[in-house]
Amino acid sequence: MGALDVEHLDTELETVSKIVPVGLGSDETLETGTIEEAVRVLLQGLGEDVTREGLLKTPLRVAKALREGTKGYRQNVKDIVEGALFPEAGLDNGTGLAGGAGGLVVVREINLFSYCECCLLPFKVQCHVGYIPSGQRVVGLSKLSRVADVFAKRLQDPQRLADEICVGLQDNIKPMGVAVVLVCWHIKYPTLEEASHNPTHPTKDPMQGWDPISVFSGSGVFENENSDDWDDYLALLKFQGVKVERNTVEQSWCPSRSLEFTLSNGHFMKNLFNGRSLSKGPTNYPAMMNAVGSILHSLGEDPSRKELVNTPQRFVQWLMNFKKLTLEKKCNGFNLKDSVEGINGNVSYNQKKVHSELNMPFWSQCEHHLLPFHGVVHICFFHGGELETVDRSFLQSIVHLYGCQLQVQERLTRQIAETISSIFHLLGVMVVVEASHICMISRGIEKVGSNTATIAVMGQFSADPKARAAFLDAISSSTAFQGQ
Amino acid sequence: MGALDVEHLDTELETVSKIVPVGLGSDETLETGTIEEAVRVLLQGLGEDVTREGLLKTPLRVAKALREGTKGYRQNVKDIVEGALFPEAGLDNGTGLAGGAGGLVVVREINLFSYCECCLLPFKVQCHVGYIPSGQRVVGLSKLSRVADVFAKRLQDPQRLADEICVGLQDNIKPMGVAVVLVCWHIKYPTLEEASHNPTHPTKDPMQGWDPISVFSGSGVFENENSDDWDDYLALLKFQGVKVERNTVEQSWCPSRSLEFTLSNGHFMKNLFNGRSLSKGPTNYPAMMNAVGSILHSLGEDPSRKELVNTPQRFVQWLMNFKKLTLEKKCNGFNLKDSVEGINGNVSYNQKKVHSELNMPFWSQCEHHLLPFHGVVHICFFHGGELETVDRSFLQSIVHLYGCQLQVQERLTRQIAETISSIFHLLGVMVVVEASHICMISRGIEKVGSNTATIAVMGQFSADPKARAAFLDAISSSTAFQGQ
Repeated sequence: MGALDVEHLDTELETVSKIVPVGLGSDETLETGTIEEAVRVLLQGLGEDVTREGLLKTPLRVAKALREGTKGYRQNVKDIVEGALFPEAGLDNGTGLAGGAGGLVVVREINLFSYCECCLLPFKVQCHVGYIPSGQRVVGLSKLSRVADVFAKRLQDPQRLADEICVGLQDNIKPMGVAVVLVCWHIKYPTLEEASHNPTHPTKDPMQGWDPISVFSGSGVFENENSDDWDDYLALLKFQGVKVERNTVEQSWCPSRSLEFTLSNGHFMKNLFNGRSLSKGPTNYPAMMNAVGSILHSLGEDPSRKELVNTPQRFVQWLMNFKKLTLEKKCNGFNLKDSVEGINGNVSYNQKKVHSELNMPFWSQCEHHLLPFHGVVHICFFHGGELETVDRSFLQSIVHLYGCQLQVQERLTRQIAETISSIFHLLGVMVVVEASHICMISRGIEKVGSNTATIAVMGQFSADPKARAAFLDAISSSTAFQGQ
Repeated sequence: MGALDVEHLDTELETVSKIVPVGLGSDETLETGTIEEAVRVLLQGLGEDVTREGLLKTPLRVAKALREGTKGYRQNVKDIVEGALFPEAGLDNGTGLAGGAGGLVVVREINLFSYCECCLLPFKVQCHVGYIPSGQRVVGLSKLSRVADVFAKRLQDPQRLADEICVGLQDNIKPMGVAVVLVCWHIKYPTLEEASHNPTHPTKDPMQGWDPISVFSGSGVFENENSDDWDDYLALLKFQGVKVERNTVEQSWCPSRSLEFTLSNGHFMKNLFNGRSLSKGPTNYPAMMNAVGSILHSLGEDPSRKELVNTPQRFVQWLMNFKKLTLEKKCNGFNLKDSVEGINGNVSYNQKKVHSELNMPFWSQCEHHLLPFHGVVHICFFHGGELETVDRSFLQSIVHLYGCQLQVQERLTRQIAETISSIFHLLGVMVVVEASHICMISRGIEKVGSNTATIAVMGQFSADPKARAAFLDAISSSTAFQGQ
């Protein structure tokens, strides 16, 4: 087992089994309504007009997504496993261990999403579940992933998630042992420095390049972490290229906690989003934090549970990075000279007066789902020759400023193109934005890997397909995914 | 557009919109009951006892999975898109095209599953959908994949699927144009020769190594397949390493059609499954084919539609590869000398009298869902020294014989271990089976990539963790996925 004691989990499992399944009853409507109301408070806190068309259904969308993403509170392991235990003869005792009754069974690489209980942002889980059957019974393989999903669809911490999956299976299948390994990726809160120094192409896997943590949990014959059974199990994971190591989960698994730590030490971390802190501005924080508290309650959680006490503050702090401000106000607090010196990426098309910058990272917040989307921006423009050099950092700043608000990718693309065009009096500009949308990934898990590209074209590029093609080709050559 | 005319699709979309959404009404229960009854007929045709515990709920599971997998017949594009069109300003005419109104928007790498209308087996789809907004309206990005899924969740052919997605979006979003590219992978019907010559490790992606086909469909400004817009679109796909080529879909996209072709030419293709043909045996084919016909009808299809006329025969033909036979009967029709000469993969553990064979491919049929699972078998055994050499092909044949029936992976693992142990009078045997289960992948798409490993251990291996570790390590070294 990990950090959590079995007794606690037993009680929890019992409680869960009493909760009725998700329905369309009046309770459900009530909870959804409460969340919608809370989301409206959050939107207003962000300085948004909740009656504008793009935001009109956002409260309902967020409420539905949160209820769906935490439906594990209303699901029951027993119901899932019941009827999926099949008789399967084993070998006689003494001759060995065989699949079916005694042999190890491992389902590897189950992809799940969960919600971080610290900050309410989704995190990605790669789950490996193994068990050794006993009593001449095996469980339907798909049930292992379904049970894992019951616990993933709650507000979680990685170790607790592993422990709950382990105990849930042990209690309901009663095998010789259960072993769970999770590899978890949390969304990073990138700093501007980090973003500028890491101009990779993050759209293939939105979690790519992030440091995952591994957690282990074992019951029965897997309780001893040095047992031969663990060796067999880990060898099977190794076939798939999964390398996991037992390590202690740091307190700072959630980046929002590191931020607190930094703050308490007096070193304010200037983050990607213009270094705004909660102490500035006239925003109604208590109302926003209360709203998050009421969301937690509506999801079936106890907002006074010790792990959740600071969650409203952390979530509001994250959200406030995307407060609506005019460009002027934003620039006011943002010193472009402070930002990182750019790496100019001039691309030659055998044409003069062309400038391009590729793979500039950005972060934004989807206004339809209040969830992050992030990726890279590529910019190319023709100019009259009066521009000697253009700092990458200047272009990067414009990208950030438009990213730091509730957005849709199409608008972001257009705004960047328009702004650059008007600042530099350009003859033509082309902007390509590539992004992964957490809303598409965590809500419909089947869309993992999907990502969106948008193009804005102005001036000379409109009439010049060859210039467009040359720029697109340059982007293609710059990415690591070519030839995959 | 592709092969299908727009008028036909319009009619179809209209028809679909009249069908009520999936409910739990009496119609739904009726359809499910009809499918369950048909599945019982198929199981009996396979020589199975439908009252045995492992099969008791198989009819219900298959019925639910088929209804779920074809729910697109009862869904409506208009309902999905309605309320998800958002106002987004574009640039003035004449200055260019920008994201939001005029700029290209592409959602790449949407993973879908569909059912092949030729043979009723699932096929995998990687879908790329693009459109150019007009009328200052953009559609919520997730709707592009949801609409694609409506058409994927029907019995399909790749080109028709692409055309239906294209027309569905064009009619309901009314943009300047829609472009759809699909890359589709059909489950192969492997031959014994092919399997033996291709001893790769297929569990990472069950479709890996199979030849996909690409299909294109365009409307509006994408109707001309040589347009600049297509160039921009394909360049965006290239960033992701997606390489697609326009090619004509061959009649033989579905392997069941190649089989027919071969048969009609008098060259019977001896397939993986012992070369049994439909003409042999006392099985009640007409009843089985009628059963498949009634399934098609219950899913909302017209079994007399020309593409479906031969589907019952093809599906039954596939299924009969897994007819229940005793080992003796199976061996009777199977000439081991004919099979491919093996590549012996002896592994040295600094111990004598050890033999191992790695990565022997197998195909089987999940008895819980009537869907294929396939992968590789690794065998290692200790013997008394009396065995000079063991043909890989002999071991491969044993693997095939146990694969060719309704199975669960745990049982398959045990049966292979027991059979080899008793034939060779072994001192110890260890069998590892790694498999991808189509039932887990196509039913719960979120489980793409997950796969299952099972171990059976007999005799000396039980008491010797070091021998187990050495064998597992040898498997690990043999796979291509190490160090990923």
